[in-house]
Amino acid sequence: MDFTVTPFADATAVTPAGEGAWTGRIAPDWDILGNANGGYLLAMAGRAAAEACGRPDPVTMTGHFLAPGRPGPVRLTTEIVKEGRRFATVATTIADELGKPLLAALGSFTQLEDRPGPEHVQGGPPELPDRDACLAVQPTEAFPPPFMAQTDLRLHPDDVPFGAEGPSGFLRVRGWFRWRGDQPLDTLSLLVASDAFPPTIFNADLPVAWTPTLELTTHVRHRPDPNEWLRCSFRTRFITAGFLEEDGELWDGRGRLIAQSRQLALLPRS
Amino acid sequence: MDFTVTPFADATAVTPAGEGAWTGRIAPDWDILGNANGGYLLAMAGRAAAEACGRPDPVTMTGHFLAPGRPGPVRLTTEIVKEGRRFATVATTIADELGKPLLAALGSFTQLEDRPGPEHVQGGPPELPDRDACLAVQPTEAFPPPFMAQTDLRLHPDDVPFGAEGPSGFLRVRGWFRWRGDQPLDTLSLLVASDAFPPTIFNADLPVAWTPTLELTTHVRHRPDPNEWLRCSFRTRFITAGFLEEDGELWDGRGRLIAQSRQLALLPRS
Repeated sequence: MDFTVTPFADATAVTPAGEGAWTGRIAPDWDILGNANGGYLLAMAGRAAAEACGRPDPVTMTGHFLAPGRPGPVRLTTEIVKEGRRFATVATTIADELGKPLLAALGSFTQLEDRPGPEHVQGGPPELPDRDACLAVQPTEAFPPPFMAQTDLRLHPDDVPFGAEGPSGFLRVRGWFRWRGDQPLDTLSLLVASDAFPPTIFNADLPVAWTPTLELTTHVRHRPDPNEWLRCSFRTRFITAGFLEEDGELWDGRGRLIAQSRQLALLPRS
Repeated sequence: MDFTVTPFADATAVTPAGEGAWTGRIAPDWDILGNANGGYLLAMAGRAAAEACGRPDPVTMTGHFLAPGRPGPVRLTTEIVKEGRRFATVATTIADELGKPLLAALGSFTQLEDRPGPEHVQGGPPELPDRDACLAVQPTEAFPPPFMAQTDLRLHPDDVPFGAEGPSGFLRVRGWFRWRGDQPLDTLSLLVASDAFPPTIFNADLPVAWTPTLELTTHVRHRPDPNEWLRCSFRTRFITAGFLEEDGELWDGRGRLIAQSRQLALLPRS
């Protein structure tokens, strides 16, 4: 199979089109079963918001996913709700060419700086085997999805839901993340990394094939080193009332918590 | 001290004022050191959004806190981004009389229904002593704040940061929640309950008096029983890079996870 690799910066590029208006393009092969990855859409919205307010780093950004995104042109709107000394808060939407909304997002942006202060960290990066001993996920037309042509994921061998051993029974997925092709990691990339791994529920012994994400929130603590691998872990504790959450942590090789994420997904009606 | 108790439904009431426009009023004694409680502002935004889209229950709602809210009139705007079969997504803002933005919010609303489906729950309600053996928090002009005139909080005796024994050293706070005056609990109330307890960082051995909330997201799984106490727990794992998260769980007496919350707060520069 041949898949198109579009560098992250290009795949999320937006062009000004008037006051608070932007155009963009959903790149091919950033999808999962034909739907653009949610973290990717959130990152495109994040890029428009960051450019609108002139601050590069999302500190906390939330997206509500409204409809599947197909490859092709999209229109974005940004509204700067507040510009403060340190943070700017921006509401962003992405719609398709016909005006159908795909994503609504709200984020606060800043210029992140490392500065001394109290530190109290319970826990640490997930323990991961060397990347050679992990599963390098390759894209397929179905699952793993075409989107895996963009990311270089290395899954913890205990957490591979589609391996010969089948689901682990533990609602967690751990692994390494970076872009393919030595593209640099930035804070917008973290919005994708938050949503790039196979869903934790694939490791459940439940007859569930697809859990659409309603909402994803990512908190960014640090700018990642541009060329480093992230150590990521995701877990789910509560499948109940037709919903499930998935909590993520993204760490770097220096043992810094780079970002935290939580998404709420829907369990299809049985 | 006398404090004004304004029932939750009245304190969050909004009146239509044109297409997508509403008026409301920040009630007295819903504040902490003069600033209206963040969960209270989010609940007022939630009420406007729910009325705008005709669906009573926030499934996931995020607020970004932009400026302190003072008692008095406010103006709200609601924009329905999408109305689907099951969910409606609404962007809401609250501004003061001069137009200064206080809160930007984004939420998805539905009519929650209990329905059978797979359940997988790791963990459970916090273990709490009987309410008589907990600390009933009473409002003062400073701390505990006037806002405690509205809520009936009973803190786990091990987690009382302002008691004779001082901070516990554990970044957690557990306790019981309900409204005073037998006001019924609804799903909008949960937005307040997510943000009603003393901050976990008050139990740290850190010289920190105040950590403003940047953003709060609450996921609602069930409608609570209207007259029951919630069993709540909040904890913080990561104070780093000038930020901290606070994760909350709200459970009912039947052992159901009613809601989950996470907020990102700012550690003031040292």
